[in-house]
Amino acid sequence: MFFHTGKLQFEAKPERPDPVYARRLQELVGGAAGEITVTMQYLFQGFNCRMPGKYKDMIMDIATEEIGHVEMLATMVARLLEGAPAQVTAEAVGEDPVLAAVIGGMDPQQAIIGGGAALPADSNGYPWNGRYVMASGNLLADFYANVAAEAQSRLQTARLYGMTDDAGVKAMLQFNLARDTAHQNQWLAGIEQLREDGLADTVEDSLHEVEVTEHAATLWHLSDGTESQNGRWAAGPTPDGRHEFGVITQPQPLGEPGLAPPPDPLLFATGPTAAQ
Amino acid sequence: MFFHTGKLQFEAKPERPDPVYARRLQELVGGAAGEITVTMQYLFQGFNCRMPGKYKDMIMDIATEEIGHVEMLATMVARLLEGAPAQVTAEAVGEDPVLAAVIGGMDPQQAIIGGGAALPADSNGYPWNGRYVMASGNLLADFYANVAAEAQSRLQTARLYGMTDDAGVKAMLQFNLARDTAHQNQWLAGIEQLREDGLADTVEDSLHEVEVTEHAATLWHLSDGTESQNGRWAAGPTPDGRHEFGVITQPQPLGEPGLAPPPDPLLFATGPTAAQ
Amino acid sequence: MFFHTGKLQFEAKPERPDPVYARRLQELVGGAAGEITVTMQYLFQGFNCRMPGKYKDMIMDIATEEIGHVEMLATMVARLLEGAPAQVTAEAVGEDPVLAAVIGGMDPQQAIIGGGAALPADSNGYPWNGRYVMASGNLLADFYANVAAEAQSRLQTARLYGMTDDAGVKAMLQFNLARDTAHQNQWLAGIEQLREDGLADTVEDSLHEVEVTEHAATLWHLSDGTESQNGRWAAGPTPDGRHEFGVITQPQPLGEPGLAPPPDPLLFATGPTAAQ
Amino acid sequence: MFFHTGKLQFEAKPERPDPVYARRLQELVGGAAGEITVTMQYLFQGFNCRMPGKYKDMIMDIATEEIGHVEMLATMVARLLEGAPAQVTAEAVGEDPVLAAVIGGMDPQQAIIGGGAALPADSNGYPWNGRYVMASGNLLADFYANVAAEAQSRLQTARLYGMTDDAGVKAMLQFNLARDTAHQNQWLAGIEQLREDGLADTVEDSLHEVEVTEHAATLWHLSDGTESQNGRWAAGPTPDGRHEFGVITQPQPLGEPGLAPPPDPLLFATGPTAAQ
Amino acid sequence: MFFHTGKLQFEAKPERPDPVYARRLQELVGGAAGEITVTMQYLFQGFNCRMPGKYKDMIMDIATEEIGHVEMLATMVARLLEGAPAQVTAEAVGEDPVLAAVIGGMDPQQAIIGGGAALPADSNGYPWNGRYVMASGNLLADFYANVAAEAQSRLQTARLYGMTDDAGVKAMLQFNLARDTAHQNQWLAGIEQLREDGLADTVEDSLHEVEVTEHAATLWHLSDGTESQNGRWAAGPTPDGRHEFGVITQPQPLGEPGLAPPPDPLLFATGPTAAQ
Amino acid sequence: MFFHTGKLQFEAKPERPDPVYARRLQELVGGAAGEITVTMQYLFQGFNCRMPGKYKDMIMDIATEEIGHVEMLATMVARLLEGAPAQVTAEAVGEDPVLAAVIGGMDPQQAIIGGGAALPADSNGYPWNGRYVMASGNLLADFYANVAAEAQSRLQTARLYGMTDDAGVKAMLQFNLARDTAHQNQWLAGIEQLREDGLADTVEDSLHEVEVTEHAATLWHLSDGTESQNGRWAAGPTPDGRHEFGVITQPQPLGEPGLAPPPDPLLFATGPTAAQ
Repeated sequence: MFFHTGKLQFEAKPERPDPVYARRLQELVGGAAGEITVTMQYLFQGFNCRMPGKYKDMIMDIATEEIGHVEMLATMVARLLEGAPAQVTAEAVGEDPVLAAVIGGMDPQQAIIGGGAALPADSNGYPWNGRYVMASGNLLADFYANVAAEAQSRLQTARLYGMTDDAGVKAMLQFNLARDTAHQNQWLAGIEQLREDGLADTVEDSLHEVEVTEHAATLWHLSDGTESQNGRWAAGPTPDGRHEFGVITQPQPLGEPGLAPPPDPLLFATGPTAAQ
Repeated sequence: MFFHTGKLQFEAKPERPDPVYARRLQELVGGAAGEITVTMQYLFQGFNCRMPGKYKDMIMDIATEEIGHVEMLATMVARLLEGAPAQVTAEAVGEDPVLAAVIGGMDPQQAIIGGGAALPADSNGYPWNGRYVMASGNLLADFYANVAAEAQSRLQTARLYGMTDDAGVKAMLQFNLARDTAHQNQWLAGIEQLREDGLADTVEDSLHEVEVTEHAATLWHLSDGTESQNGRWAAGPTPDGRHEFGVITQPQPLGEPGLAPPPDPLLFATGPTAAQ
Repeated sequence: MFFHTGKLQFEAKPERPDPVYARRLQELVGGAAGEITVTMQYLFQGFNCRMPGKYKDMIMDIATEEIGHVEMLATMVARLLEGAPAQVTAEAVGEDPVLAAVIGGMDPQQAIIGGGAALPADSNGYPWNGRYVMASGNLLADFYANVAAEAQSRLQTARLYGMTDDAGVKAMLQFNLARDTAHQNQWLAGIEQLREDGLADTVEDSLHEVEVTEHAATLWHLSDGTESQNGRWAAGPTPDGRHEFGVITQPQPLGEPGLAPPPDPLLFATGPTAAQ
Repeated sequence: MFFHTGKLQFEAKPERPDPVYARRLQELVGGAAGEITVTMQYLFQGFNCRMPGKYKDMIMDIATEEIGHVEMLATMVARLLEGAPAQVTAEAVGEDPVLAAVIGGMDPQQAIIGGGAALPADSNGYPWNGRYVMASGNLLADFYANVAAEAQSRLQTARLYGMTDDAGVKAMLQFNLARDTAHQNQWLAGIEQLREDGLADTVEDSLHEVEVTEHAATLWHLSDGTESQNGRWAAGPTPDGRHEFGVITQPQPLGEPGLAPPPDPLLFATGPTAAQ
Repeated sequence: MFFHTGKLQFEAKPERPDPVYARRLQELVGGAAGEITVTMQYLFQGFNCRMPGKYKDMIMDIATEEIGHVEMLATMVARLLEGAPAQVTAEAVGEDPVLAAVIGGMDPQQAIIGGGAALPADSNGYPWNGRYVMASGNLLADFYANVAAEAQSRLQTARLYGMTDDAGVKAMLQFNLARDTAHQNQWLAGIEQLREDGLADTVEDSLHEVEVTEHAATLWHLSDGTESQNGRWAAGPTPDGRHEFGVITQPQPLGEPGLAPPPDPLLFATGPTAAQ
Repeated sequence: MFFHTGKLQFEAKPERPDPVYARRLQELVGGAAGEITVTMQYLFQGFNCRMPGKYKDMIMDIATEEIGHVEMLATMVARLLEGAPAQVTAEAVGEDPVLAAVIGGMDPQQAIIGGGAALPADSNGYPWNGRYVMASGNLLADFYANVAAEAQSRLQTARLYGMTDDAGVKAMLQFNLARDTAHQNQWLAGIEQLREDGLADTVEDSLHEVEVTEHAATLWHLSDGTESQNGRWAAGPTPDGRHEFGVITQPQPLGEPGLAPPPDPLLFATGPTAAQ
């Protein structure tokens, strides 16, 4: 069960409105690597966690914080839209090219649908959706997904940081950058903890006995660039310590030609019943 | 530019058809962590790579391999559907409950749309889409995304391995598990290589000077579970070596109440113009 | 079965082209609260209506009218796009900032895909989809959904009315506003009629005996704003006349901690088999 | 900012697993009228509310409660999946038709993706998305949308109540039914309150002066059913008290034929330049 | 403007309910090649047609017919669902494997959302969406798209014809097959008519002067199958009469290596600034 | 299995950056008729082809070429984005309306997500998805779909050709136009070849015996335009040579009124149990 306070985790006060930037900021609200994604991803990981104790508690701490990040960003977007041009005559646009450009760069749905506010969508107006969520029940796989999510999120925040000179927006993004750093480190520390606790084995070890060892550490040289053999990934021990990397420089297919089976007559697929 | 040979990278020969399993295998074809995702993710990362040389070459080697994995899986799905019940009378169903169950468990679109073949969709028939792709141009962030993708993919492959006893299917999945292991290790090695080459700095260091240090390593205790302070993420140095972890046990909001600004009259949002 | 006349229900003649506005008007064509939504929603409600007679007839009257609204709007969009800039050289843009702004504010797909015409999509280019449709077979629930759809549609029409000074566009929107008002009133009257006819009982009454009465009229005070107890929703009889409103000012969870069950070993979820 | 307690708002304890029902229950988790929809809809309405005070406080109370409903349902789904068949051989299925049927009726992604847990998707595996959210900033329009959402949600809950005989599931659904009733009444009371406070005028009155009065209360008889004139919607005063209903029994189009304008040669649309 | 009669274009009376088939029939309602697609595709082609006269009239004749096809199919689906199992106890399922299988094979949303009726979605429950529509304003390109749509639709109808032995369903599908044949022929005739009227030139001729002739009729032999040179597409005149087909048996890339340009420092893409 | 060379099939070198055009070009990358669609459509048709030999070989030749077209376009997009404005202060925008307009017309996700590169999405930022793919296993139906895809693709390329004056971009589009022409002719030749080989019969003939002949060649005159009887589609032999076209000038419904059956009480649909 959840509780709420009306105060924001951090201030969300722009110096001035900027409706074009308000559109861009939607990426952090409802983009694939935005705050709704991490909120829902961590909530479902927490709900689906099968162990009471420190992992579940930590996931729920962070998940609950992320709901508040959606709140901060939504508030910021609404404030950036204050006074955005709503009534626009064709004449006014013809006389004021900057006004015209601002209108062109705005998200029309923030006005038409939201009344001047954030939407659960990204910077191209595409709605957030549940397929962004990685919550597998396997904490090791999920913590890697969380590291990746924070990395993309921090990168996008850094890009948006450079797209404004509004001190209020920058202050909030500086807070967000710090929180992304904190969370990314916490998920990395979580991976270390899983190893310490022997909980990384479930996924990493259990099926290694069945996988075909000879294919578990090779690079198939399938593109003609000649440099791929010169990286860390081409020789030496693998990071998981199980194998030695190798390169197959002249790869040959191991299988026979692939061919779909003869068609079922009732399905009217074109099949091997006539001259070719 | 690409070339193709008709032979498969590895055999895709089931012992016998299994239309219910053919539906499940769609997850590896067109699911969020399936082969189309890694194909397109690595292709776009390769296309968008801004440096000739070993990174681009390695990404393109692996990306090109993944197209062939889609081919193997699509071939396997079509073969698992050979002889699947297409003509079904209500009477036959009433007399043969196993037949009835098989029909219930099949993906109807594999027959109606594909004529007995794989589709670019997942195990619930939801089509693959481009928002699954993480290709940011930042190799460090993207390699983390690739590690995460391989981890989820290997996990799902392992789950599907346990859902069949067909030796031909299992053989192919064993190959796939090995390739996932190889690729995951290669992306992890790629992260090491980026650090060695000084290329991890662009994203990790450049904006650390602006982020608010005091918020970059703390866990906000926002859920009442009492164990979250006992993990690796709560004390000691952070994995990136920049900070010491800490816990805020009684977190207080740092911001004032969030409130959207007064409404624009032309947008007819309900606003502070009347008694409350 | 349907018939068509080439004449529009109402004129759709703009005074002059306005390609930026043509993008915005897409919201009324293919947005979540646009004309395709009400067309398909009412058609499916009508098709699925289980009673011959006045309800089905009325729903089909209105549904059939809505198809014609899509026609009016699509015609208006095409006319607003007449003469829109299609051939644009970089030089011309550099010399004419208003032209540049117009191009920036246009929907590129109206030109590239539609050849200068409306698309079944909203103002951000997101395609209309069938999950917008509420058609449950329960007329009471559906008429509420229809009231809500007309309310959002009227609101968006009013917002778009303020975004243009084209008399021809305004004239059509005035007609649309009137029809939204008419339809909203008709759905509200339909709710009254259902009550008169004893048809509201199916959904409202039949399961009230099983719901837990003590939880059927309380506000759980879960956010720290102090004013929520001062509204109509916090005290006095409920609008349906069944209960007295109340507030739980210090809400406590009624359940035990939620925890997912132990994992199935074959699914490789992280589980309670190791130290935490 | 938000806080969380690990205890559920209400118990979510099924008597026994039921994986087929676990799929159906996804509709209440991530369907168009499910708990994620009302959570996100009310959160965005609250974030976007432009008045401090009782409305915003009430919306945030209910929004915060709804997050906990997602938690209850996700927990219930995971428990219903305990012991669901994960390892299934073709032989076992051939021998046990009920097992075969259960597998056919399950959501494969709950196992393959979630490891035996709920997903942010509906009962057909379609992911929740942000276009379900109605948050316009106009409280009257939004409260109607909320009434509609609760009505559909209650209806779907009632349908699911009849699809199980598990006392634990039924107990939770009885709680949910009560909360839907409470919330629906609260939104209806909110509409009354808005009228009392003079806040319903913004949307209802402000543009009535421009809409074409003669079209604001008529039913166009466009379908040949003869009964539509006999309803409450065809005669008498309109519910908003502004008009008298009427019927146009022989409706004629008011506009001229709709025709898209001549094509731009650069867009290669087929146009009026040749014989027809 | 549109009109409606309550009578169906053709009977939609199944002999008996069949809820599993009712799910499959959704493909013809809301699938990519289903009736909603052709309805919306032809309506938008008609609305966007820039010439009064025979083309627009014919398109609108067929478009208007298609709305009635959605009606027939929706009615059939509802009737196939009559008496479908709604209340299902775990015990009953355990005792009746056929009942269990039927439940597994049903579309749960037809019951939970639709109350036992059709939905605007396909046989996997994926909603119809507007990106299925091809309406370019160029009648030649669109008539080809219509031929393709009717071909896929007829094929799917033929597949569904073989999946039932219900005489009432088969009768309706026989009518549908005939109408698909009629429409496919009419679109092919429309292509002939466009050529006769000199209206095919806009798309086929106008840019042929700029395309690179030497690349306009060759097959690049990029896959190692050796038979592709033996088809009609490899030698002889092209169907449009403009070229002679040829095969490039040893294709070489014409371009230099593709490489994304140096990164913008503010976007933090990994770039050529360090050792590789 | 696939191979890759780093060289592009054709040069992708713009004369100068043009970020607004880079957005438009996304339509050819990830639009419904873009290169990802034809890549995936032909790959799945090839994978699912049930006959070894010339058809499968030809399909795989063309499919493999199309992957390289995605590569060319993605490279072009990245180069068009070189130097695109990333850091934009509100002041700079206020002073430079052309800069403002350029920003307004850009795809924000190309910068925020891609770091200045192409995305698997269309010109409105909507992601490519698998429902665009037509791969039915029936080569005749699929070759018609391929003709239609190439026609729309060529048309969109021609439109984009007119939207730029960059000689480098135009050169690449001229190559693309030629390849679209080649492929469209090859699919048309493939249809001829299927007829020659007797492989067109499966779909065209096999169910003609069951379709209702009297409905297989008539135009139902359902829209009041009077010219539709004057086309090639209204009289004379049908293109498939089976029928004579005819027109039903006064069409009457052949079916009785459509009505959904009585509701299941457990589903709470409004039904015929009370006065109407």
